[in-house]
Amino acid sequence: MLSRDLYSERMKASFVVEELTSIIYGKEANERRKKAFKEALNHHDFDVGDDICYLDRKEYYERGLKCATQVATWKRGMNFKSEVERRDFSMILGVFPTGFSVHHSMFEPTLKGQGTKEQQDRWLPLAVDYRIIGSYAQTELGHGTNVRGIETTATYDPKTEEFILNSPTVTSTKFWAGGMGKTATHVVLIARLITLGKDYGPHAFIVQLRSLEDHTPLPGVTVGDIGPKMGYAAVDNGFLQLNNVRIPRMQMLMKNFQVSPSGEYSRVGSPKLIYGTMIFVRAGICRESSYVLSKAVTIAIRYSAVRRQTQPKPGAEELQLLDYQTQQYKLFSLLAAAYAGTFVGDYMLRFYRESMEKFSQKDFEILPELHATSAGMKALLSDRTASGIEVCRRCCGGHGYLAASGLPSLFGDYAPATTYEGDNTVLFLQTARYLLKCAQRAFAGEKLPVGVMYLVEEQEIRIAKSSDLTRPEVLIGIYQNRAKQLIKAAASKFQSNQEKFSEAFDAWNASSVQLVACAKAHCQLFAVKTFIETAASKVCTFGVQRVLKMLATLQALHGIVEESGSFLQTGALTPQHAEMALEQTLELLKLIRPEAVALVDAFDLPDFILRSVLGRYDGDVYTHLLRSAKNSPLNKQEVSDGYYKYLRPLLKGSKL
Amino acid sequence: MLSRDLYSERMKASFVVEELTSIIYGKEANERRKKAFKEALNHHDFDVGDDICYLDRKEYYERGLKCATQVATWKRGMNFKSEVERRDFSMILGVFPTGFSVHHSMFEPTLKGQGTKEQQDRWLPLAVDYRIIGSYAQTELGHGTNVRGIETTATYDPKTEEFILNSPTVTSTKFWAGGMGKTATHVVLIARLITLGKDYGPHAFIVQLRSLEDHTPLPGVTVGDIGPKMGYAAVDNGFLQLNNVRIPRMQMLMKNFQVSPSGEYSRVGSPKLIYGTMIFVRAGICRESSYVLSKAVTIAIRYSAVRRQTQPKPGAEELQLLDYQTQQYKLFSLLAAAYAGTFVGDYMLRFYRESMEKFSQKDFEILPELHATSAGMKALLSDRTASGIEVCRRCCGGHGYLAASGLPSLFGDYAPATTYEGDNTVLFLQTARYLLKCAQRAFAGEKLPVGVMYLVEEQEIRIAKSSDLTRPEVLIGIYQNRAKQLIKAAASKFQSNQEKFSEAFDAWNASSVQLVACAKAHCQLFAVKTFIETAASKVCTFGVQRVLKMLATLQALHGIVEESGSFLQTGALTPQHAEMALEQTLELLKLIRPEAVALVDAFDLPDFILRSVLGRYDGDVYTHLLRSAKNSPLNKQEVSDGYYKYLRPLLKGSKL
Repeated sequence: MLSRDLYSERMKASFVVEELTSIIYGKEANERRKKAFKEALNHHDFDVGDDICYLDRKEYYERGLKCATQVATWKRGMNFKSEVERRDFSMILGVFPTGFSVHHSMFEPTLKGQGTKEQQDRWLPLAVDYRIIGSYAQTELGHGTNVRGIETTATYDPKTEEFILNSPTVTSTKFWAGGMGKTATHVVLIARLITLGKDYGPHAFIVQLRSLEDHTPLPGVTVGDIGPKMGYAAVDNGFLQLNNVRIPRMQMLMKNFQVSPSGEYSRVGSPKLIYGTMIFVRAGICRESSYVLSKAVTIAIRYSAVRRQTQPKPGAEELQLLDYQTQQYKLFSLLAAAYAGTFVGDYMLRFYRESMEKFSQKDFEILPELHATSAGMKALLSDRTASGIEVCRRCCGGHGYLAASGLPSLFGDYAPATTYEGDNTVLFLQTARYLLKCAQRAFAGEKLPVGVMYLVEEQEIRIAKSSDLTRPEVLIGIYQNRAKQLIKAAASKFQSNQEKFSEAFDAWNASSVQLVACAKAHCQLFAVKTFIETAASKVCTFGVQRVLKMLATLQALHGIVEESGSFLQTGALTPQHAEMALEQTLELLKLIRPEAVALVDAFDLPDFILRSVLGRYDGDVYTHLLRSAKNSPLNKQEVSDGYYKYLRPLLKGSKL
Repeated sequence: MLSRDLYSERMKASFVVEELTSIIYGKEANERRKKAFKEALNHHDFDVGDDICYLDRKEYYERGLKCATQVATWKRGMNFKSEVERRDFSMILGVFPTGFSVHHSMFEPTLKGQGTKEQQDRWLPLAVDYRIIGSYAQTELGHGTNVRGIETTATYDPKTEEFILNSPTVTSTKFWAGGMGKTATHVVLIARLITLGKDYGPHAFIVQLRSLEDHTPLPGVTVGDIGPKMGYAAVDNGFLQLNNVRIPRMQMLMKNFQVSPSGEYSRVGSPKLIYGTMIFVRAGICRESSYVLSKAVTIAIRYSAVRRQTQPKPGAEELQLLDYQTQQYKLFSLLAAAYAGTFVGDYMLRFYRESMEKFSQKDFEILPELHATSAGMKALLSDRTASGIEVCRRCCGGHGYLAASGLPSLFGDYAPATTYEGDNTVLFLQTARYLLKCAQRAFAGEKLPVGVMYLVEEQEIRIAKSSDLTRPEVLIGIYQNRAKQLIKAAASKFQSNQEKFSEAFDAWNASSVQLVACAKAHCQLFAVKTFIETAASKVCTFGVQRVLKMLATLQALHGIVEESGSFLQTGALTPQHAEMALEQTLELLKLIRPEAVALVDAFDLPDFILRSVLGRYDGDVYTHLLRSAKNSPLNKQEVSDGYYKYLRPLLKGSKL
């Protein structure tokens, strides 16, 4: 039964939803999505299952394998037009992370990025056809963000032309690798390369962990699942200990570094190229962050249109949650963030591809900017999505706490993104290091990369009336001025600390709260600018452009309101302007209100992807909440075993 | 094996840990805690179990029952000195929420608060002795925060002198009541009272749901578990539908309202008294929020002392996470918040008890202040704890994501506190309504309650040098000035909106973002002031008072740094002062650094309460992480069933 509320919300929208969908995903990718959805729906047995939130860990893991192997099997029988289409197919139907996720996200890209032509020819076809399943083992029990600290060793033995792999300590146990516990047959292993008595630090190796015949671990390999987590229940994150495991020399990934048969170590090409995989993965995280956030806002906004609470006056109908200003303030700013993240993610992937072209011509000028931007944007966007999902959950009141709402698993599955692939605080500090170097160059009058040109540009901002605060150049100017001042302040803080401390590290550490602040401000500027410019540049109808511009403006204004402190402190805004920014923000909420449901519809997330009783397209929430409740495994028995075991004796008066 | 890092941290502390523990819990309550812990440890079979994070839902529920019934059974055989001691015993050993939690937190207090003497005499001994287990059913599938909207009816039948209970619609299904699904025998039911044809709105009734003989649901009762949630796995939150269930007239709770045998409705005493239970529960949430937060910071700070990352220079030992300024900034401010919450919670409970004394003498003057304060402080502190646990989790990097870290369940079990017992945004708005009334009274020159006297007091703040910002009167003055200005601004916004809108509700709604902001500022002032004054007033050694004052100052300064926008915008601070506040904050972090581990030790949370591999008292983290990993249920099979079912066919080349 279609909710009348959602029906009338959809009638209110001023733009064509499908047109916006095509802009969100891109025309071609959107066609690919539709094709993949159709394929999935054609196979009636492809079903994540309404019961997913009732499964225990083992069942959950197996359900993940079921979905992942189904998709993999279809792919074998399909003709893809391109490599991109093939890759996208898995991603589109990868409803939740499984034991295969790292195979796609890390194992294949690392083979491509760090394997020689011969290595790729040997391993990639096996991986692409799922004859082997790969994982990626870098993190150790005692060593995470600081990769240089890892202890696992790969010692070259020139006699047999093999590497001998060892985990010498408890803390060197590989830990966390997704899919390694019970699924993967192979792994890209990061270990310290030792040859001819010298330790060359972390390098990448391909290691077979399990027999291709019967899946038992190979000799010297101790491998298993690391146990339950906050989310990722379908993923067998694994631990791994290696005891004198030998692999042929040619299983070191040798595109950038080589060891000769006699054990001579050499660099091939540029060592800088090894950053490629990492940057690609981070750019992907940026794009994915907005996809995940779009799921959360879809659930919360649809439910807020259906849920009613409190009569505005006696006798009147209860108001939709979506009509409360506080709810709009929370949800529409996240809606804007989801759209912003979409375009920032696209930009990052484009930036990555263009840079790779240049790198292949040995032009690495852009590398520091690419590296710093991908680090900071990964941190900014994953922070925003993780905290945004939780805001959406709270916006759904008590029912958001139900597993059936879809929000707890969305949060649980997304939460590790704030610490994996580089802890967000560490990443912001990497961006800050780059920004301080740029500030130094600016001070020395040297040429600056485009993204930080604002460090030397004067931004004259004229705000005569409140509505001036919605002008793109004014908003961008305000963010630029703040970032510039914060970078300068952090740089001068670092400088004065350098005079105070004898060690450079101590000076850096003592400045790090301010360094993180300046990196965040730079990244927020980047997000604001990218969204505003994308909204202005998209070739589309007036209706769609109008809503995109509203969202881009809201993102910028909301950021100003929420962080007014740093804008005021740096003089980027006056107190009066900050007040105007709030005023304009509240005005925008009213304009977005009638478009809100259509704006989430445009993310085009079918119910079988969204898996949320609260976010159902038809809005028929209560009937399905009750149905889902009745399916609880505890309801299989009218009187529970727990009663007989524990309650009955107590109620009947048992004593110690 | 005791970690040498934790050992040396403990050597650094400048104060006596036990002395601080006794201040945190109060001398007597601390004795009660120790006694309860001893009792628990004496029973070797009392064990939440190291395997708790591997259990499925049914097992988890039963584990909860096991622990809860054990504690209940002991209590039967024990002599308690007081009612408080008896109640505390359950709370201290209630390691996680179970099917019994609502029995203690809501069922008993409601009987006490709303039952007549006769009703209490009849029901309380049964509840206290666990001859019946109670729940509390107010929320319905379609009705939460707005209690007036509930649909369940209790229609009085004078012929039989019974109430007839009905759930007339899907949305009237009672939903969420803790312990109602499978555990409770009885429930306090909130239903619309209808007598002699008139609807008197929501009232409370005692309803038996299940047979005391065999636990089967009574005729007309459909009851069950609502399914998995983000946390609360041991709690059988329930749904309930009633179909012509009849209960005797005397099962309406009649302390404040009565229905005579012939069906006449009357008020007895003051209707205001019904707020008592609600306020008591909210005050309890305030105190509990800091207890939960203290668990999270204990885990994160101990682990940060053990975990090492990145050599400050080649050859040096990797640094403890606790030495990173960014980590200190995040964790020490939460440590301060946990201490602040402790004292605010104590204050709220004292405020509640003193008010109740006055109410019993028909003096209700203090009620609006008590109500507004308990609402706002519940919102402020539960927000802070929920988001604080997540910050702690991230501060533990990847390992914080493991269930074995204890942080995911801490978060999952705490998350509903932000929406239950009043959604936090709605509660802030209740506080704002009170503040606006006070502002009106101030404007009219009327007498003001003590807590808002600052609305009419002039705060002259002199800040000559940076360290002036650590003076108590300066900090309190700054917070007062901000709150005053924000309240005035919100009041004037509401006034101008009243001129714009014809409906009062619309004017209120259009001002609500600002109203929430002023309520938060008032509550933050309250927290800052309470902590500063408590720290100054506690009779204790110089060492303990010194660290308490540092934490109180840090709480105040950190709040200024994080929300500098509203301080600057209201003119409570200048940009230069805001910069000084950051400077002083960073100085304080250095002073707190050597005390940090001792400051969490003072919370005195034994390992069996903390249940965290990362937060172990001995710091022996890695050995136990690996042990816990190996216990994963997926590791029971070397080659998983999933391999045979799904992976093997794929790896061997199966096609569609």
